[in-house]
Amino acid sequence: MTPLLDRYRGPIESGLREALRGETALVRILRYHVGLSDEGPGTSALGKLLRPSLVLFIAEELGGRIEDALPAAIGLELVHGFSLLHDDVQDRDEVRRGRPAAWVRWGEAEAINAGDLMHAIALRTALRAGGDVVETLAAAVCDMIEGQSLDLAFEGRFVTEAEYVGMVDRKTGALFRCAFQLGGRCAGVPDPVLATLGEVGLAVGRGFQMQDDFLGIWGNGDEFGKPIGSDVRRRKKTYPVVIGYAASSGEERDRLERIYASENVDAEDVDWIVALFERLGVRECVAEGVGAHSDRARRAIDRLPLSDDGTRELLSLIEGLTRRKK
Amino acid sequence: MTPLLDRYRGPIESGLREALRGETALVRILRYHVGLSDEGPGTSALGKLLRPSLVLFIAEELGGRIEDALPAAIGLELVHGFSLLHDDVQDRDEVRRGRPAAWVRWGEAEAINAGDLMHAIALRTALRAGGDVVETLAAAVCDMIEGQSLDLAFEGRFVTEAEYVGMVDRKTGALFRCAFQLGGRCAGVPDPVLATLGEVGLAVGRGFQMQDDFLGIWGNGDEFGKPIGSDVRRRKKTYPVVIGYAASSGEERDRLERIYASENVDAEDVDWIVALFERLGVRECVAEGVGAHSDRARRAIDRLPLSDDGTRELLSLIEGLTRRKK
Repeated sequence: MTPLLDRYRGPIESGLREALRGETALVRILRYHVGLSDEGPGTSALGKLLRPSLVLFIAEELGGRIEDALPAAIGLELVHGFSLLHDDVQDRDEVRRGRPAAWVRWGEAEAINAGDLMHAIALRTALRAGGDVVETLAAAVCDMIEGQSLDLAFEGRFVTEAEYVGMVDRKTGALFRCAFQLGGRCAGVPDPVLATLGEVGLAVGRGFQMQDDFLGIWGNGDEFGKPIGSDVRRRKKTYPVVIGYAASSGEERDRLERIYASENVDAEDVDWIVALFERLGVRECVAEGVGAHSDRARRAIDRLPLSDDGTRELLSLIEGLTRRKK
Repeated sequence: MTPLLDRYRGPIESGLREALRGETALVRILRYHVGLSDEGPGTSALGKLLRPSLVLFIAEELGGRIEDALPAAIGLELVHGFSLLHDDVQDRDEVRRGRPAAWVRWGEAEAINAGDLMHAIALRTALRAGGDVVETLAAAVCDMIEGQSLDLAFEGRFVTEAEYVGMVDRKTGALFRCAFQLGGRCAGVPDPVLATLGEVGLAVGRGFQMQDDFLGIWGNGDEFGKPIGSDVRRRKKTYPVVIGYAASSGEERDRLERIYASENVDAEDVDWIVALFERLGVRECVAEGVGAHSDRARRAIDRLPLSDDGTRELLSLIEGLTRRKK
């Protein structure tokens, strides 16, 4: 936990409790899902609260007030939460933050309902910060869902690096860009600053996702991380796969295609792919990609009117995100 | 088609085309789902456009303008459409308006994405009519989803009439109430009129849903209607079931409970239930319920400042809805 994330945890947790109050069956599922209920490992299930913390941090740094930006921050975290609820149904992921996913406990239909409710609550909450904030957030939701759809379509074929980046800018980048821009909007900054904030967000999103993809192959698979090879089993065209496929040829490429076209990927296949990627230098290449996007984010941050302390904190947070091990 | 529905079809269809423009895979699914694409039986798949027509009709009758109310009307129709997309996934309904449901053609995960996108587009579109309109619409979405969740929970047990009505006021009533209130909001009527509009909407919603439930048992099962007994097969606690269960006793009630607790309901069970309901006078009782809520709607409409022609048109529309055969 960096100081930046630590600082905003209190108001964000209160804001989430306020947005998810009530005693219907669905709202109780939402509190469980975001980690506000007592079941399971408690506060560790609340997650890093990364996106809403970025909203509040940027708003404060650029002259806004936490209380004015809080509805936007909470709206964004609820959007992120709703997407995870539906993702888990779509991907049949059974574990979320170390606990059974909502659909495992309450069934698929109710998990879809819970996500739909969370989506509506998210936009209603954001509305309290004004129409511009809702428009920014809802536009990000549209991009995120389009990215989700591309990610799904890519399970059926290999893709180029440009296609991959286009998908990631939507699936992951949209909410990071939104976080930085919501902070700026709530502080009332002019359009050129909003544009730079958007650049920072997209670069952070790319770095974050590429690191996530890295961990999907070389992660340590502990209780809060992805199991090793999990991305291979579901045929996700993650960054290592994009790089590895482009670098492969002949029999190796043929085998790669056969594995990704087959119904069942076994442990031997996963081991072979990991070994192939090592041989082709994919690991280094992915690390370079993550580094390049971190650098891009850093250069854009230099153009923002942040305090010196703020700049240091933000750079340290980004450094942590792109070097994280789970 | 009544004159009221006919009148607003043009602007609503244009508004839907505008909201669902673009060439991504998901937006194409949305155009198919609402019946704007050429595939299948074409315009008949566009549906009655009942809810958005009510928004525009009420707005005009109360002194507003179509063009000002159109974003609210389109937002509401898109909300209705997104709920149908997810409903079909949840209920495994394979046919929607005479064509394969979206999840049958594009898979469950993509149908969930399509619904999520439609939800976000709905609220973005409504935002063009102002923050109050978004708040009204998003609040209706929350109620609708809670009703959806109750409907699902009721599959596991028998319920009282009060519980049934509470569920219907959310699942179906929320969007009808919203239609009337959005029309009023866009015309800028004062709060007491908004309250009466809400009463009309809830009463229409109850009558509409009870007639729907009637058709779920005694419908003729043609290509656009529900198959006979379909509601029984999925253990839905529809109005006839609520009435029939309350009126039953002894061995008949035991058999009713056994059937609704069993995994598979066969044709013989359905026939027995339909015959039991006839014997217990459920058919007449349901028709009376529909009539009572139509009367309630009529009395509330009398308190609205509508034109004489407008009153006649609205009453005729409601009459048609609560006597419809499919």
